[in-house]
Amino acid sequence: MDGVRGPITKERNLTMSQASAAPRSADRTPTLMLTEAGEAGAAVGRFLAANGSALQALGEHLRAAPPSVVVTCARGSSDHAATYGKYLIETLIGRPVASAAPSVASVYDREPAGPGALVIAISQSGKSPDLLATVDAHKRAGAHVVVLANDAESPLAAMADTQLALHAGPERSVAATKSCLVSMAGLAAIVATWTQDSALQAAVESLPGALPLAFAADWHAALAPLKTATNLFVIGRGYGLAIAQEAALKLKETCALHAEAFSAAEVRHGPMAIVRDGFPMLAFAASDRTGDSVRDAVAEFAARGASVMIADATHAAGSLPVTTAHPAVEPLLMLQSFYRLANDLSLARGLDPDAPPHLAKVTRTL
Amino acid sequence: MDGVRGPITKERNLTMSQASAAPRSADRTPTLMLTEAGEAGAAVGRFLAANGSALQALGEHLRAAPPSVVVTCARGSSDHAATYGKYLIETLIGRPVASAAPSVASVYDREPAGPGALVIAISQSGKSPDLLATVDAHKRAGAHVVVLANDAESPLAAMADTQLALHAGPERSVAATKSCLVSMAGLAAIVATWTQDSALQAAVESLPGALPLAFAADWHAALAPLKTATNLFVIGRGYGLAIAQEAALKLKETCALHAEAFSAAEVRHGPMAIVRDGFPMLAFAASDRTGDSVRDAVAEFAARGASVMIADATHAAGSLPVTTAHPAVEPLLMLQSFYRLANDLSLARGLDPDAPPHLAKVTRTL
Repeated sequence: MDGVRGPITKERNLTMSQASAAPRSADRTPTLMLTEAGEAGAAVGRFLAANGSALQALGEHLRAAPPSVVVTCARGSSDHAATYGKYLIETLIGRPVASAAPSVASVYDREPAGPGALVIAISQSGKSPDLLATVDAHKRAGAHVVVLANDAESPLAAMADTQLALHAGPERSVAATKSCLVSMAGLAAIVATWTQDSALQAAVESLPGALPLAFAADWHAALAPLKTATNLFVIGRGYGLAIAQEAALKLKETCALHAEAFSAAEVRHGPMAIVRDGFPMLAFAASDRTGDSVRDAVAEFAARGASVMIADATHAAGSLPVTTAHPAVEPLLMLQSFYRLANDLSLARGLDPDAPPHLAKVTRTL
Repeated sequence: MDGVRGPITKERNLTMSQASAAPRSADRTPTLMLTEAGEAGAAVGRFLAANGSALQALGEHLRAAPPSVVVTCARGSSDHAATYGKYLIETLIGRPVASAAPSVASVYDREPAGPGALVIAISQSGKSPDLLATVDAHKRAGAHVVVLANDAESPLAAMADTQLALHAGPERSVAATKSCLVSMAGLAAIVATWTQDSALQAAVESLPGALPLAFAADWHAALAPLKTATNLFVIGRGYGLAIAQEAALKLKETCALHAEAFSAAEVRHGPMAIVRDGFPMLAFAASDRTGDSVRDAVAEFAARGASVMIADATHAAGSLPVTTAHPAVEPLLMLQSFYRLANDLSLARGLDPDAPPHLAKVTRTL
């Protein structure tokens, strides 16, 4: 999440008394989180329809003047989308992608050096001061700035050389959902137009139809093991690492669960020291070789007694259902299914995903 | 940690029966972890003495042919050192620093594009296959490769255009300590020679004397709150974010505590949803503006009932003692003090830091 939410599109400064109101029961009207997450497919459709010519022009620009480096600027869920973009760009284009540390511009007052960079800024509100300072510094240094923001009238959008408005519609839920999925789809669309990769382009265009099907997928088998959990590891790799990070944040925010994300490679070293019998793990495994790495790690942890739930695009027995697709978009389908699980788990734990128990007030991160 | 440990310098494939041996009591001989952590100051001295001319030549090379981008390649504790290097390079030199995703080379088979990159590879053993594959791909693409490895005869060291052997001596403890501190000091030395920053150079040269003093600092006030904890947040910002990551890994590995690191900026949003009354937080606050950000976050969490322990280079009342120094090296001093705390906490929790409860066997991460 960004440091500051715009009051029009999101209101985070609920008081503690509101936040600690009586738990919402599962039989009430759908939560804002569930309603907004369910709009992701339509939102991706609007994004693609509105930004077709801007994406085409960006692709031509990037092929004509390839950037020396790509820098992403984002926080919270938007930063998870940026991680997804990093893996796409590094694997399909071969440019290194640096995640901008917002404190470099906002706390250390250092200018980034060198033109020739492509900056991709991602933000729901487009108003966070540290994000604005970071992007402004890069822009003054000569970078080409692409902005993926939901608020097309925001200060961040005003800095764009290429504006790709998300068109996700108002996002009032505290937990960002559809804006994260549209940001991820937007990054895949940028890479598809840059590389003229028709298979990836087709995969992106399939999302408005595929995301609603993923949202209907039945992941309730994961509810019972997590209903009384306090700790959890969430595992992904490659394109899927970003959704492990996003799922871990959502489980903290909406379910008061201490969930931490790891790559399937890192988790097999030090972190496994805390995996005891029954320790829960949620894993996201795509249909490609990164999925093999996740499946291998999960098998090892299961043999040590961990309670493993795995979403698996190869449809292994006992796994949470995932539609096999282009490996680059499978994480978006898994994340869409996960958002329903997080909503339902929040309710099952006696919480309200629209009013997290210790809600961060609106904070200006300087 | 790296995917593979060399059998000469580190033995991780203890059996489960060894790992679950009777707890070691606090009155036995010092642990390997304590002994080796205590050697960090001398090790930094050896590093500086051995690599003076290589560092000077590297500085001349980097000023004559500034890289367009810096790429770090590392895993585990070495990757935390890389995070420290990222902040130093981005704030003091203004080049973007990308952390190489090892799966890009090892799982996706993608070549990195473009010469003109500076690659900094950091590894205790210098043998991890995915790290070797990543560095090899960058080297073939024309990057200048700097290797910070403890094993100067390793396959990774053989790829170096500039080899800066760590000279940390054998590290047999499962938990890396001195090799991480020497790697961090080495990154600070690279930046000092690159920028010809005499204040930073002097700060690096002060470390052989200052680290032993930091190792003697009394942080035992943090023992009691953590002795029975199960969960913990570790907070840093800027140069100090890396040591929050390193401390969180060590607390998992040696104390079976689910510790997770956050920047002082990110933690104030979604993650604070799980901070309840008495939730423990360990914070590292430098004497500069990043420390102000940490102090502000800690005050906010304390007001919400969190149990906060803060190491503070401004010597606030009730804080864990830290010597004020150049802000770029204060994190190394705090980490050195923390290593003793982690060792003592492990023993206080009835564990043996040299034999973590669910030890990762030697794993070849592909």
